[in-house]
Parts: sequence; structure tokens; C-alpha cells
Amino acid sequence: MQPFLDGLRQLLGPADLLTDPADMAPYLTDWRRMFSGPALAILRPGSTEQVSAAVGLCAQHGVAIVPQGGNTGLAGGATPQGRAPQVVLSLARMTAIGTPDPIGMVIEAQAGCILQRVKEVAADCGRQLPISLAAEGSATVGGVIATNAGGVNVLRYGMARDFVLGLEVVLPDGTVVKGLKPLRKDNAGFDWKHLFIGSEGAFGIVTAAVLRLTPATRHRSVALLSVQDLPAAIRLLGLFQDRIGETLSAFELISADAIRLVETQCGLGAPVSGGSWFLLVEAASSLDGLPAAVQATLEAAYEAGLLQDGTLAASEQQAQSLWALREHVTEAESRCGKSLKHDVSLPLRRMGAFLESIQARLAGLAPAARLNIFGHLGDGNLHVNVILGDTPLSIASRITGMVHDLVAEAGGSISAEHGLGQYRLADWQRLTLKTERDLAIDIKRAMDPKGLMNPGKAVPGTSHRQ
Amino acid sequence: MQPFLDGLRQLLGPADLLTDPADMAPYLTDWRRMFSGPALAILRPGSTEQVSAAVGLCAQHGVAIVPQGGNTGLAGGATPQGRAPQVVLSLARMTAIGTPDPIGMVIEAQAGCILQRVKEVAADCGRQLPISLAAEGSATVGGVIATNAGGVNVLRYGMARDFVLGLEVVLPDGTVVKGLKPLRKDNAGFDWKHLFIGSEGAFGIVTAAVLRLTPATRHRSVALLSVQDLPAAIRLLGLFQDRIGETLSAFELISADAIRLVETQCGLGAPVSGGSWFLLVEAASSLDGLPAAVQATLEAAYEAGLLQDGTLAASEQQAQSLWALREHVTEAESRCGKSLKHDVSLPLRRMGAFLESIQARLAGLAPAARLNIFGHLGDGNLHVNVILGDTPLSIASRITGMVHDLVAEAGGSISAEHGLGQYRLADWQRLTLKTERDLAIDIKRAMDPKGLMNPGKAVPGTSHRQ
Repeated sequence: MQPFLDGLRQLLGPADLLTDPADMAPYLTDWRRMFSGPALAILRPGSTEQVSAAVGLCAQHGVAIVPQGGNTGLAGGATPQGRAPQVVLSLARMTAIGTPDPIGMVIEAQAGCILQRVKEVAADCGRQLPISLAAEGSATVGGVIATNAGGVNVLRYGMARDFVLGLEVVLPDGTVVKGLKPLRKDNAGFDWKHLFIGSEGAFGIVTAAVLRLTPATRHRSVALLSVQDLPAAIRLLGLFQDRIGETLSAFELISADAIRLVETQCGLGAPVSGGSWFLLVEAASSLDGLPAAVQATLEAAYEAGLLQDGTLAASEQQAQSLWALREHVTEAESRCGKSLKHDVSLPLRRMGAFLESIQARLAGLAPAARLNIFGHLGDGNLHVNVILGDTPLSIASRITGMVHDLVAEAGGSISAEHGLGQYRLADWQRLTLKTERDLAIDIKRAMDPKGLMNPGKAVPGTSHRQ
Repeated sequence: MQPFLDGLRQLLGPADLLTDPADMAPYLTDWRRMFSGPALAILRPGSTEQVSAAVGLCAQHGVAIVPQGGNTGLAGGATPQGRAPQVVLSLARMTAIGTPDPIGMVIEAQAGCILQRVKEVAADCGRQLPISLAAEGSATVGGVIATNAGGVNVLRYGMARDFVLGLEVVLPDGTVVKGLKPLRKDNAGFDWKHLFIGSEGAFGIVTAAVLRLTPATRHRSVALLSVQDLPAAIRLLGLFQDRIGETLSAFELISADAIRLVETQCGLGAPVSGGSWFLLVEAASSLDGLPAAVQATLEAAYEAGLLQDGTLAASEQQAQSLWALREHVTEAESRCGKSLKHDVSLPLRRMGAFLESIQARLAGLAPAARLNIFGHLGDGNLHVNVILGDTPLSIASRITGMVHDLVAEAGGSISAEHGLGQYRLADWQRLTLKTERDLAIDIKRAMDPKGLMNPGKAVPGTSHRQ
């Protein structure tokens, strides 16, 4: 492998080819320290041309590539897996952002740009990029696209896919495909961009994108509500959709247990009592009538007997402190020790029975474990996390398998927004129809015949490596 | 071919295998009578199983398939092309619509469902399917998806692609891939649905879909405005985006010449004078404050000197008569004899120079021709149509080639929303980077190695046939 590494060093320069174990360590483990794997080197190219040349060298030497952005993934999609010769290719140095076009409502950014930075540039010209993630301060544009990231505003604005107008990618043989037209509408035949969105680097590496912006909304209303049970939460969602549906930007569900955890672990207090479920609802509009419409909707909800309690933020500061409750759920969970994260979506009408089954089976399987449930009810997306407590780690995969089995029975998805990565690939293979699996494998074979692109993640491979 | 046709007749029954030339004729020519081609037979399967079996028979006998929905396309994508043995497979009999889920906001429909009917079912449960096309009374769900149709509301809601949550397709070998989960969020690895959206049947046949619905908006404001020039129209778009951007549902541009045509050919009158460009602007919201906000935006536009004249509809009836002006542009054009349709998108800042170049070149190439320009300015999408007058038909392709060359020079797309079909495939091949073409061909080879799926349209083939 020395000629290979020498070639890379010549290409990237010694500062951007890391081979020292201490330098490499941060790239070889995900931020939750759930996944870890070896690599020959870390590559930090600074341009699309360098990515192309580096990928070409890897192809020539039969070395696999793990693309990495901000390393904020929750499914090990950017962490090496397996023992085959491989490198991590970090896009972190590619951080150029183009001048946004506020009327055309587009912005170009390289893969390594931090999402929050792109959002700030969009906001500076009076537009918004409404992809809103907990990790937006370190997640990168490339990672967000490669995993088709979700977040709290999907209900209104869609997933990352829905913001990609143009894409530049490097194919597994090093070919650069440059599709960076700043067009909001381009329907010229097969749209190859979608091969690379959400496929976690299985077909190539995203190096830059043109993103769609949306108009900004000047007013927002934020409410924290409590309801007695899940059917009431779902009926409340329907009521909001009926009355001010198109302004709804977030409709977040948090279990009462999760709120208690935030209170005890993080010292925050919820100004709303009662109920077994809490809802964090946000509506936004550029029209002045928003607060009155939200108020009227809440009154209708009280009259219909749907609400236990609730508060409507009277200031931006109050709105932020209500959001803080939701945003601290993950941190509160992490302070309780090891937990298993499940990122599922279900038809709303199956959700109640699904949660009851989980509860019953978990009690049998792991009596020391407890559920931590929250998520994006407006999208049918729940994070059904399991705080393990004294549960032996050895049964973790049985718990996850049980959750995923129940999701499949209910006609849901085992990855609503986090992606498969290495964490869910085996369960996806087990629970997905053969016709769908075969289609993925056929495309993988066509795009990456040597099986060198992010093996063991997202798309099952066809090479001997796997 | 007799055993082949006998097999099909046994499968479909004699009533749904058409071989009589008179019965076949309506399926062999597009509705504008621009394209026409031969076929061995017309197949009218009534179920996914019949589509699968029919496709299997075609594969076995090496017969190509032209899938057809409502036959409303503008690019000849659903009309046979070439002389190879082929059949037209009409989805028109597959018209089942599922019960919509108003809170989950999804609806399932078979490929042959008329778009307008699905929209009505959605509206009946208080939701909307905001894909709005002139042809919605005869276009089908399958055709809308296979061509990734656009329309007047793309600005706000996106293209057909953005509404597809689930898809059922029949692959070129007859395999059925069933992905009809009613989930608003499903991010489990490579999303194969996007192979089939917008690729005009090149990789398989769409037989059913789960579509995303949106909340309904109770109020709408419609205005007809006139401006002096294109830069003013673009600045006006920016002003609307700044003030009430997220409520903007349509921002349509119509040339003064096109308005004159509608007046003289269709007997409608525009209640607005002056200016070289007209704008039909629609905003919609569930909030009561909409009309006041639109009014205030118009006042700001007058103050900024952007408007020549304008009227804001005071009733739903007035709104409809303003829309009628826009909707009659195509009919007015068709009453002027033959015309060439161009469906281009451009960065807004390139649009002015682009239109000037077209005008100059057209005057040299075809002095008897005149431009008919209208479109979706909010999307950067113009229909730069050419009314031929006494221009000899023999130079039609030179005119179209000239328009497409100028689009390519300006970094635009030669198909913003209508698709490539057979009309634009050659120009797409001429004007598209080799890396992009090769990617499409690689996927075509993987998906349809025999080259039997809608040859000569949308995606260049790899078989001897083409």
C-alpha cells in the first residue's frame, strides 16, 4: 500500500493525508462512540479535482472509501466498517459558499459547508433554508444531502432531498459529474441527482450542491400543549391542519416521561401540567393574523375537549424556552447512560397499537429498560428510544430487532430520517421485499461494480468484501 | 408475432387488446397531432398483475412498450416512435382511488386515475393535491409521475416528484416492485422511486402511487398587473417574496402580445392596460389577513414605481376571469395555426438578454414567425413559443435548435416541466455533458438491458434499435 499512500501524499500534501493513529482517531469513531473501524489513512481534499484524483487512486488500488462530512450521523454511515483496505475521505475542507440569489431563491455550497453557516447566509439576504436539525452547527451540506436529513420542519418544508436543485458528484472511478445549474425547474429526462441523495455515498461522493431557498416568515407562534392520550394528539393535529394547516411548521410529540427526564436531568421546567403526552407546536407566517388564528385554534381545541393544559408563548424568549424543552430530550437521555435509538415512521392510525406492543414486549425482554419517546408526530415519525439502565448490552440487538419487527408489521419504516448506515443495514435486508433489495443491488452493481463506495452502509454491496 | 398477440389476447381478453387500425388510431397520435407512430397492438390491462404479465410477454418476444396515460403530453413521450416491433400499453383502465387519510395527509391512486378526480377526492376531505395543470381533466396520475409534471403552483408546492410518497412499478422483465407505504417520511437507504419519476417509462411502468396531500387554504387573492419591462417584473417578484412570500402560489408572466392574442382570438378582455408584460399573481392562505397583506404589497409596488397598472380581484368570480386570460393563452395560440412549443428555464438574471437574442435571431431566421411568450416567472420557467405563420415547416427544427442553443448558453434547461419525450431527446443529447449522458445510459443499461422500455424517448437507449 506504500505506493498508494505516496500517491495520495503527493496529491494532497502531507498536512491533508493523515496516517498517524492519534490524528486519525477522531475520524474513525462516530460522535456517539457506537461505531468504530480502521482505515489506512484520512484524506482531506480541498477541491473537487482533488476528490476526483483521490477517488481515482483508490479505484486503481482497490481501496474502499468512506466519505465523511461533519461526523454527526446517528447510524454509523460515515464510520469505517469491516477490515478491507479503506480510507476515510473527509469533505471538511471544502467550505466555499456562493453568493445567494434572493429572487431566484438559490444558493450554491460545497459539501463541507456547515449547514448553520449556509442558513445564516440565506437569512442575511431575507430568505431561509428551512432544514432544521439538532446537529446543524456541525453537520455539513454533503452529509445532509447524502443522508437526506430530516428535522423538525419536514412537516412543512420537506426533507433535504426537496432542497437539492443541483449537484456535483464524483463517481467511483473518479469521474466528476457537474450538475450545478441554479434552476428551480429542470425536467430534462432522468434526474440522476436522486441516485446520490439519501444513498449515503454508496454510488459516489457529493462535492457541491445548489440548494433551493424559501421566503422567510416574519411571525411565529409557539405553543406547548398537553393531551391525555395519543388519539387526542392525533385529533389535535387534524384540527390544526383544518384551521391553519399551511402555517404549521412543527408538530412535535414528547412523552410525559421524556419531559420529566428533561426536568430532572437538565433542570428545565415545563410550564404545562397534566397529560401523558406533550406537544410542541410551531406555526409561522408572514401575515399579521397568525397569533390570532393560533389562539382561535387553541380555543377550539379546548372546547372540543382535546387539551389538558397548554401555553402559548407571548414572546420570542418564551418561544425559545418552550423549544428548549424539546431540544434537551436527547441530552437528558444521554445523561441516563446507554440508550438505543430507533427512528421509525408509521401510519398514524397504527401508532397507538404499535406503542402498546413495544411497551409489552420490552417489559418481557428487558425489565430494567425504559422507553424514551419523542418525535415529529406531524410526519408520523417517532424516536422510540430505549434507555438501557441495567439491561445487559448483549441483548441490545434483540431489542432493536423487536422494535423493527413491529415497525414492519405496522407497515412503517425503520429509518424515517436518520438513514440506514451500518446500524440498520442488516435489519433493512431482513425486513425489505426481495424485489426492492434486488433493485438496490442492480443499481449498486451498475454504479460501483468494484464495491468500493462506503461498503457495509445503506446499500447492500455485490463484491466479495461484503 | 401471432403467438405473441394470441398470448396477449388470452391475457387481456379481446376487448382490451386492440389491433384494428381504427380502434388503435387514437393511441398512435398525440393530441396535438405532432407525433405519430405504428404499433402491433394497444394493450389495456386492468390490473397490476395484467401489466406484469403483459410486460413479461413483451420481454419474451422482444417487443418494445410505449406506456400511455391520458395522452396529454406535449413532447411525444407516449407516442410510438421508430419502426421496431412495439405496442402501446394504456393504463387508462386502472382507476381505483383509495380512501384518503386526512390527518396522515396521503391518498393512494392507480396510474390511470384522472388527476382532477384525485384532486376532488382530496378536496372532499378538506385537503388538497396542489398539482395544477391545464390538462388535469384528462392527464393521469401515472403520466403526471412519469413526466414529473409541473404547472402553475410549482413555485409554492413543487413538481409532481415532490408529492410521490409511495410507488408501485412494473420492471422491464415484468417484476412488480410494490412500494406503496403511506409514509410521509421514509429514509431507508437508496430511494428507488426516483428512478421512475420523470424518466418517462424508460426504466419501468408506474402502476400506482401514494401521494402526499397538503392542508387546504381557505382564502385566495388574485391580481392582474402590468409592468413596463422584464426587470420590473423580476423586482416585483422579489417584493412579493419579501412581504408575503410563503403565501405566493402562482407568479405567472404573460407578454402583452399574448394578452392581445387572447383578446382577439378568444374574445376575452383584460381589465388592465399598459406595459409590455402582464403578471397573474395568486396568493393563498388560511389566515384572514391575506387580502390586506396583498393590498399592502401592491401599494408598496406602486410606490416603488414597479407597476404600470393592476387590479385585485374582489370576488371569486373576478379571480376566475383573471385566471381565464392566462388559461386561454394556449388556445389563442392554437387558433393562429402551427406553432413550436419551447419549455425552458433560466436563471432570472439571464432572462432579459436571452429573450433579446431570441427575438433578433428569429427575425433573421423566420421573419414571418412571431413569439408567444408566457410562463411561470416565479420558477424561471418560460414557454417561448413560436407561431409560425407563413414560415416553412422545413425550418422548424432550426428554430427549435436555435432556441435550445441559446438556453444552453444561458445555463438553462431545454425542458423545465414538459419532459424530453421524442421531441427534445436529440437536442438533449447534443447539449448535455457527456458525463451526464453516460450516467443516464449506464442506468438504462442496468434497468432495461434489452432496450424495450419506451425507446427513443427521455433516456438514450443502448440497444441496436436506436
